[in-house]
Amino acid sequence: VSERRRTRRLAELRAPEIVDAVGPGATLVLPVGAVEQHGPHLPLATDLLIADAVCDQLVAARGDELDLWLLPPLAVSRSNEHAWAPGTLWLGPTTLLAVLDDLGRSLARLPARRLLFVNGHGGNSALLAVACRELRLAHGLLTFLAHPFVPPDQGGAPPPDLDGDGELGCGIHAGLDETSMVLALRPDLVDLGAARRAVPEALAANRHVRFGGPVTFGWTSQDLGLDGVIGDPTGATAARGTTLLALAVAALGAACEEIARFELGHAGLASTTEHTSPTGD
Amino acid sequence: VSERRRTRRLAELRAPEIVDAVGPGATLVLPVGAVEQHGPHLPLATDLLIADAVCDQLVAARGDELDLWLLPPLAVSRSNEHAWAPGTLWLGPTTLLAVLDDLGRSLARLPARRLLFVNGHGGNSALLAVACRELRLAHGLLTFLAHPFVPPDQGGAPPPDLDGDGELGCGIHAGLDETSMVLALRPDLVDLGAARRAVPEALAANRHVRFGGPVTFGWTSQDLGLDGVIGDPTGATAARGTTLLALAVAALGAACEEIARFELGHAGLASTTEHTSPTGD
Amino acid sequence: VSERRRTRRLAELRAPEIVDAVGPGATLVLPVGAVEQHGPHLPLATDLLIADAVCDQLVAARGDELDLWLLPPLAVSRSNEHAWAPGTLWLGPTTLLAVLDDLGRSLARLPARRLLFVNGHGGNSALLAVACRELRLAHGLLTFLAHPFVPPDQGGAPPPDLDGDGELGCGIHAGLDETSMVLALRPDLVDLGAARRAVPEALAANRHVRFGGPVTFGWTSQDLGLDGVIGDPTGATAARGTTLLALAVAALGAACEEIARFELGHAGLASTTEHTSPTGD
Amino acid sequence: VSERRRTRRLAELRAPEIVDAVGPGATLVLPVGAVEQHGPHLPLATDLLIADAVCDQLVAARGDELDLWLLPPLAVSRSNEHAWAPGTLWLGPTTLLAVLDDLGRSLARLPARRLLFVNGHGGNSALLAVACRELRLAHGLLTFLAHPFVPPDQGGAPPPDLDGDGELGCGIHAGLDETSMVLALRPDLVDLGAARRAVPEALAANRHVRFGGPVTFGWTSQDLGLDGVIGDPTGATAARGTTLLALAVAALGAACEEIARFELGHAGLASTTEHTSPTGD
Amino acid sequence: VSERRRTRRLAELRAPEIVDAVGPGATLVLPVGAVEQHGPHLPLATDLLIADAVCDQLVAARGDELDLWLLPPLAVSRSNEHAWAPGTLWLGPTTLLAVLDDLGRSLARLPARRLLFVNGHGGNSALLAVACRELRLAHGLLTFLAHPFVPPDQGGAPPPDLDGDGELGCGIHAGLDETSMVLALRPDLVDLGAARRAVPEALAANRHVRFGGPVTFGWTSQDLGLDGVIGDPTGATAARGTTLLALAVAALGAACEEIARFELGHAGLASTTEHTSPTGD
Amino acid sequence: VSERRRTRRLAELRAPEIVDAVGPGATLVLPVGAVEQHGPHLPLATDLLIADAVCDQLVAARGDELDLWLLPPLAVSRSNEHAWAPGTLWLGPTTLLAVLDDLGRSLARLPARRLLFVNGHGGNSALLAVACRELRLAHGLLTFLAHPFVPPDQGGAPPPDLDGDGELGCGIHAGLDETSMVLALRPDLVDLGAARRAVPEALAANRHVRFGGPVTFGWTSQDLGLDGVIGDPTGATAARGTTLLALAVAALGAACEEIARFELGHAGLASTTEHTSPTGD
Repeated sequence: VSERRRTRRLAELRAPEIVDAVGPGATLVLPVGAVEQHGPHLPLATDLLIADAVCDQLVAARGDELDLWLLPPLAVSRSNEHAWAPGTLWLGPTTLLAVLDDLGRSLARLPARRLLFVNGHGGNSALLAVACRELRLAHGLLTFLAHPFVPPDQGGAPPPDLDGDGELGCGIHAGLDETSMVLALRPDLVDLGAARRAVPEALAANRHVRFGGPVTFGWTSQDLGLDGVIGDPTGATAARGTTLLALAVAALGAACEEIARFELGHAGLASTTEHTSPTGD
Repeated sequence: VSERRRTRRLAELRAPEIVDAVGPGATLVLPVGAVEQHGPHLPLATDLLIADAVCDQLVAARGDELDLWLLPPLAVSRSNEHAWAPGTLWLGPTTLLAVLDDLGRSLARLPARRLLFVNGHGGNSALLAVACRELRLAHGLLTFLAHPFVPPDQGGAPPPDLDGDGELGCGIHAGLDETSMVLALRPDLVDLGAARRAVPEALAANRHVRFGGPVTFGWTSQDLGLDGVIGDPTGATAARGTTLLALAVAALGAACEEIARFELGHAGLASTTEHTSPTGD
Repeated sequence: VSERRRTRRLAELRAPEIVDAVGPGATLVLPVGAVEQHGPHLPLATDLLIADAVCDQLVAARGDELDLWLLPPLAVSRSNEHAWAPGTLWLGPTTLLAVLDDLGRSLARLPARRLLFVNGHGGNSALLAVACRELRLAHGLLTFLAHPFVPPDQGGAPPPDLDGDGELGCGIHAGLDETSMVLALRPDLVDLGAARRAVPEALAANRHVRFGGPVTFGWTSQDLGLDGVIGDPTGATAARGTTLLALAVAALGAACEEIARFELGHAGLASTTEHTSPTGD
Repeated sequence: VSERRRTRRLAELRAPEIVDAVGPGATLVLPVGAVEQHGPHLPLATDLLIADAVCDQLVAARGDELDLWLLPPLAVSRSNEHAWAPGTLWLGPTTLLAVLDDLGRSLARLPARRLLFVNGHGGNSALLAVACRELRLAHGLLTFLAHPFVPPDQGGAPPPDLDGDGELGCGIHAGLDETSMVLALRPDLVDLGAARRAVPEALAANRHVRFGGPVTFGWTSQDLGLDGVIGDPTGATAARGTTLLALAVAALGAACEEIARFELGHAGLASTTEHTSPTGD
Repeated sequence: VSERRRTRRLAELRAPEIVDAVGPGATLVLPVGAVEQHGPHLPLATDLLIADAVCDQLVAARGDELDLWLLPPLAVSRSNEHAWAPGTLWLGPTTLLAVLDDLGRSLARLPARRLLFVNGHGGNSALLAVACRELRLAHGLLTFLAHPFVPPDQGGAPPPDLDGDGELGCGIHAGLDETSMVLALRPDLVDLGAARRAVPEALAANRHVRFGGPVTFGWTSQDLGLDGVIGDPTGATAARGTTLLALAVAALGAACEEIARFELGHAGLASTTEHTSPTGD
Repeated sequence: VSERRRTRRLAELRAPEIVDAVGPGATLVLPVGAVEQHGPHLPLATDLLIADAVCDQLVAARGDELDLWLLPPLAVSRSNEHAWAPGTLWLGPTTLLAVLDDLGRSLARLPARRLLFVNGHGGNSALLAVACRELRLAHGLLTFLAHPFVPPDQGGAPPPDLDGDGELGCGIHAGLDETSMVLALRPDLVDLGAARRAVPEALAANRHVRFGGPVTFGWTSQDLGLDGVIGDPTGATAARGTTLLALAVAALGAACEEIARFELGHAGLASTTEHTSPTGD
């Protein structure tokens, strides 16, 4: 029998090892991908590839130090904004909430108390944020949601802008960054010749109702473009992708440092300074 | 019989008036409040008061111009982060999604196509964002989600900072701004003498896992403080509240201008400029 | 800071006040309204207006004496018998049961044990009766369902008959009494000139299958009339409405006296007289 | 092969016969029973026995004339007010609504359009009334709900009073009438010697909150008595039971005459007389 | 009052008898039938008739010896493979799982711990197998699923082959055996003259994808034949039916002997012989 | 850009390729794994490893010939019989049915009509069989369920018996065959020294209530053994595993030949020979 590679994958452990290996200080890392149309140039699995790669690299780089444990990825998630496109696989929101609740209930049997969703698909962000609270309440877990990059349609800042703003803040699906990362990871799956700029310029010109703006709106990718792209992939390069992936792994590693120290409850983050109002009646 | 006041409340219309009054250009405005503990100094209805007031003022100021129609407020919503506190009323996430779906199905019978949630309770933001897409897909509505202020725990920028940052970006519940607004609206319901500073300073010191940071986390208000406050209400004033409410109404009015013009689909926001990738293989 | 008006609205309390204010002897009063077509002469909000007004008056008149606490109204409820009409808002039965269960679970955190539904919409009666038992079982509450008037379609006696029977027992929707009450409350919202008699005379002639008869039947308002009215509003007057509202408040007040004394369980209403059967074998 | 008895049981038909046999004029009759504690003297199946017997006799007496078709009984239903008692079988309300919806969907494939619930268990009444509307809306059926006797806890009149009012209007479970009917149907299952008077006298003295009163309340049989009886079975006789059963069959037969003629929609019961309001403005 | 027949029907017991009668050693027997098209020659109730008859005979023959208690049959179940045929009544899978869960929860109040489904409808087998585990987990019951004959579409061996294999292993619906059993039980309901051979010969010729083969497949009876029969009923006789029923009762009786002794848990079937691996590293 | 490897993974396709690539003749292959305790010697991912490996090899060997397309594996499934063990991840049955329904709805957008579940976890078999019919009905797919080996607890024959019957037909979880296959695939994950024989001999001695017997029963692995093993892994070898995997791939390949030809409906498997019954009355 060969020697087992040192593993940081939960599912590679044997049952009696688990309680010791995955202790109260561990953080469980769940890559959340998607299988959905990504325009004419990227594979359906784009978000899954990125989430998987980032998590693999994260756990390889920092797993022992930060006691990270990788869960099997959630490959299919909330992609119904692309439901119109053959090949898109999606779970409805109540199905996905039920899946996450079942996972939370299962994981709460472990000594580990921290669960981190690393979400590769912007369309999941709101629902995963909902789940973070539900799993905290229902199962007592400490739950966290991070992204390889904070998607602009969730109100976050755009990813590190390396070479301009040709996407007008709308590079949220199959655009410059995603395309670059897949070029870095699986260039054989990219047909860059088919890539077209598809920036919703009228939308980008809005002050309120736009990606990353103060007003969220419901949309499908069919609403926004002819071929399902939202962004401008034409300038994508593997080099940019490699840089973005490294930045993502570094940022997630830094986040995991905080997560490992994060506590809630009486011994945790409760405010300790309370001053009496000087204006009380 | 007295003359009816000119109404912009949908529920005050009579059935045969509706199809003409609430036409394809109308925007339906749904105030979303909450009934939940707001610390020792604010009433349970704080979020409901604010959402109601902002919507009333918005519709009074801009309703005729922008064809806005007010729906009865959703008084009780997703407040389970305060479920531990007697007096908090809350709907579970699947219940609330079902309520919103039923409302969407009902409203889709109207000629109006635009539905705007004006959400006074930060704890609803993620779930309402989920609903925006679901109602777009299931019922064909154009859906929008705005806040009197974008709550920092949803990744948005903090509200206009008028006098400093004593809350360290954590004024998300019963803090300076909410307290000021209720002082402006219903001073009789505020006991400012009971207000205490309750800023989770350790949390605020985080770079990643904090309100408005790149990592979302699951929490209850019990996790974060002893009396359910997250922020520092001690400096609240009615004057500040009045200013904030006016800013919110103005911002929502500007948003409604965009919403009134907003279209999706072929005649809508689809990108019109597509360039061939120069680097295609 | 101004002095708070003495409040009997739960949502106007501050969190630390609640446990003392809303004690074991309190009765929580939930107005249940509806937003649904009410023919050509009445506003959509008719049932909500009436439920709200009756509860307001009830609590104003008897709240301190009987320890009544008003909850925010449930504005939208089970109106799918009017689903065909644009403007009708409705929750499906499982959604509404879930809403009521969530409310019951929330309210069971209070020391108060009594919850009274004051239901302004006849179409809710059966479902609220279902919920009464469910909330008793699931959350241990003492639950009650009352109406401003017992609707004839629920098998009850008609409301006090003040001036004849022109509706043949069928005045269940937008008829004489509802119209009169809205005339008393919001005359500006009534277009009495549009009111038409719409009495289903063939139905009224039935002995079994009729409103208030021994056989209940499923119906929509589209099934029964051309414009959604079931009754004869033509003789409605504000004076009659004022009388009816006063009668309703008085009857509910008397009911609340009983409710305040009502107990279940060993110290409650269990029969105390048990006689042996003289005919036992 | 023997000759088939002329059947009025749907499930005894062979598939190709069905479309002709169960035509548009037919009424489908579903006996709804219960299996639940019925005190020390009656069997669990009491409500099922009565519903079955009444339907059998109804169909035998009037089936050919009125084109009635018997469905297999629903033996287990909403008995959770007796859930505390071993032997009680019950479906939760959402389960039972789902069962009824599935049945409605199945039955809507038949040419028959009328479905009559004959409900032997008072605890089902509200939920079956809910289902009547839902099945009308979802499946287009004409739905009806009748009882062997209208239970007082549903607001109906008491059954024909043959010999006094010793139960004070509270004979709703295992009382005089149910016991008499089981004595008539299956005397071997009754232990009349164990029968005890169990009348909740304090409850009966209420004007509002009582069985058949204007205020419905949530209860379990454990709340109301020591042995699960609500009523006074001690005077029950088979003769009375025989009389009651005959009255029920006669009343249901008369109801089925109306049901057979009952129509909804434009050619149905819509009011035909509409008068202009003389008081319109 | 007449003497009660000695009963083995749970629903004929009176409440106080139950705890003693249905003790920890008892097995509860639930006949599961179906109401669904059975071709031109058999009644809709075929599966219900067979399940009922087999259970009745089983309990009559072995009930006292093996402490068996008969529950009211589940008449309608998972028949959606015949949903296309008017007269078929069916519950969807989640409805049926909910019904079974509610029954399990109810039955778990009894001292009895063993529940046996005797399933007359092959289309239920997979779902009842799902329920066996769910009820074990949720309610602690010992659950069992048996069939009057193991249907070939569930991978079991065919029933005792008495006279050949004209059905090619495909006699799963309204074929030789079912027809024979109904001829034995209710010959008046069979129209043997309408019986036709309907054997899916191409399917039977498969090695993998066939009834009883290693690959299960989804099908409706409409997919497989013109009149809903799958098998060859033409040779059916009452004598064969009588033999099959007697064999089924005998086999179920033998199964119930094992069930009565069956235990799970520490004192149960846990393996007691554990040997160390001679090949461990 | 490098040349893409010829792919048979659906998620590696780009959107515009899909409709042509995955045509009406294609079969979609979904590996269904599990993450659950597998005793002291096997990793949690055992079933997932096996399902993945078998499908990979199947598609590599026969994919082009038979037009097979691999879907991302379902890693977590119905493992609640091991819910007691930390590390087991599981979906409840209604969650899993919802996931499968969502997948079916998504896949039905493709031209492909055939969906094959290759199920590595015996505990899923019944539920996947339920889903086969549901997806056929709801989405019109041709659905199939196969196993690397037919698990004895599902009534199938045991896997090819290569060296005796030391497991008495009970090698269903972490036994000889599973252990051998993981030894072949990932020997580093196996601790054969920890393997112990755990054969439930009393159960195996049953004629009726046993794995693969005519009576199915509900169980958890805690019910059956001390360490979660059911079988005897002690004699496992990589060579046996390699043989078993090859046999599985061969058998699945042969099954896929049939699946590729399989049709339902009028042009499909409907019986074509119908004979008149000679014994009709």
